[in-house]
Amino acid sequence: MLDNNLLPRVPPDCCLGIDPGLCRTGYALLQRGPHGPILREGGVIRSNSKLTLAERVLELAEGLREVMREYQPQVMAIEQVFSTVQFPKTAILMAHARGVILLTAAEHKVSVVDYSPRQIKRMLTGSGKASKEQVQHAVKNELGLEKILEPNDVADAFAVALCHYHTARSLPMRECG
Amino acid sequence: MLDNNLLPRVPPDCCLGIDPGLCRTGYALLQRGPHGPILREGGVIRSNSKLTLAERVLELAEGLREVMREYQPQVMAIEQVFSTVQFPKTAILMAHARGVILLTAAEHKVSVVDYSPRQIKRMLTGSGKASKEQVQHAVKNELGLEKILEPNDVADAFAVALCHYHTARSLPMRECG
Repeated sequence: MLDNNLLPRVPPDCCLGIDPGLCRTGYALLQRGPHGPILREGGVIRSNSKLTLAERVLELAEGLREVMREYQPQVMAIEQVFSTVQFPKTAILMAHARGVILLTAAEHKVSVVDYSPRQIKRMLTGSGKASKEQVQHAVKNELGLEKILEPNDVADAFAVALCHYHTARSLPMRECG
Repeated sequence: MLDNNLLPRVPPDCCLGIDPGLCRTGYALLQRGPHGPILREGGVIRSNSKLTLAERVLELAEGLREVMREYQPQVMAIEQVFSTVQFPKTAILMAHARGVILLTAAEHKVSVVDYSPRQIKRMLTGSGKASKEQVQHAVKNELGLEKILEPNDVADAFAVALCHYHTARSLPMRECG
């Protein structure tokens, strides 16, 4: 755990939001602009379900490394680790992917900050119990888009990136993973 | 999933057994000898619990890469993924480590084979319900050691490596992760 006081309290120039998953990992690059956050790039890294688990996490790592090399984010924002334990099997496969995602962050010296689903919802909508649709609308409005972002993985990745963008301006940050 | 028929059915020259964990990952290198399996090397890769999760999985990956570079195993044998879901939080942290372990295997083009705890116990002792002590005794006897192997992580890593050694001689193998 790093000392909170060492972390910057201004929004990062480039934040990489991640919605982790073995089949699909959503990513979102958010840039600090003169009037607020700017969407730079978003996408999904897919893994081929016909491959072995080892080959799939390799696909994920290679995709993510490409994104990091191209955009060189300073911070990775990701959902907290224990939010999906009601589905143990899904959570365990997701955690394989999440371990690899954190590894690629550490390899590229990108700090990792995590948020609970409740924190993300509250920061974006004002309510920790907001629906998925309310969060998606908030993401659309914040980024000045005409339509809801699709697919969901990308919208969720932007939600956690936006949560970090605003948290970094207002509160002491917690570095974790 | 690879085609089973493509996999060798003779014991591998060098098999790397793994007992995965975030705090401690046990590893065991088993070599094919003229009269049976030979213990080449065993140890534990530790991660510093004061570091962030991202930094800890990086420590694990670096330790494992060193082992792979030095011993160049052909196969990694590891316990199956869903064996510890009765402790979801522990299992999820272990799965972060396991994802990184599988990634390093794929990066080094090392095949991964997994076994259930029951398969390992049955192969080593004749009973799928054997106790931990019975398995440890079997490992000691098989490797011609004078004492039970310590620590447990290393003994468990040799158990899965031995399970693979014998399975590769007798049965069609299943490549997974």
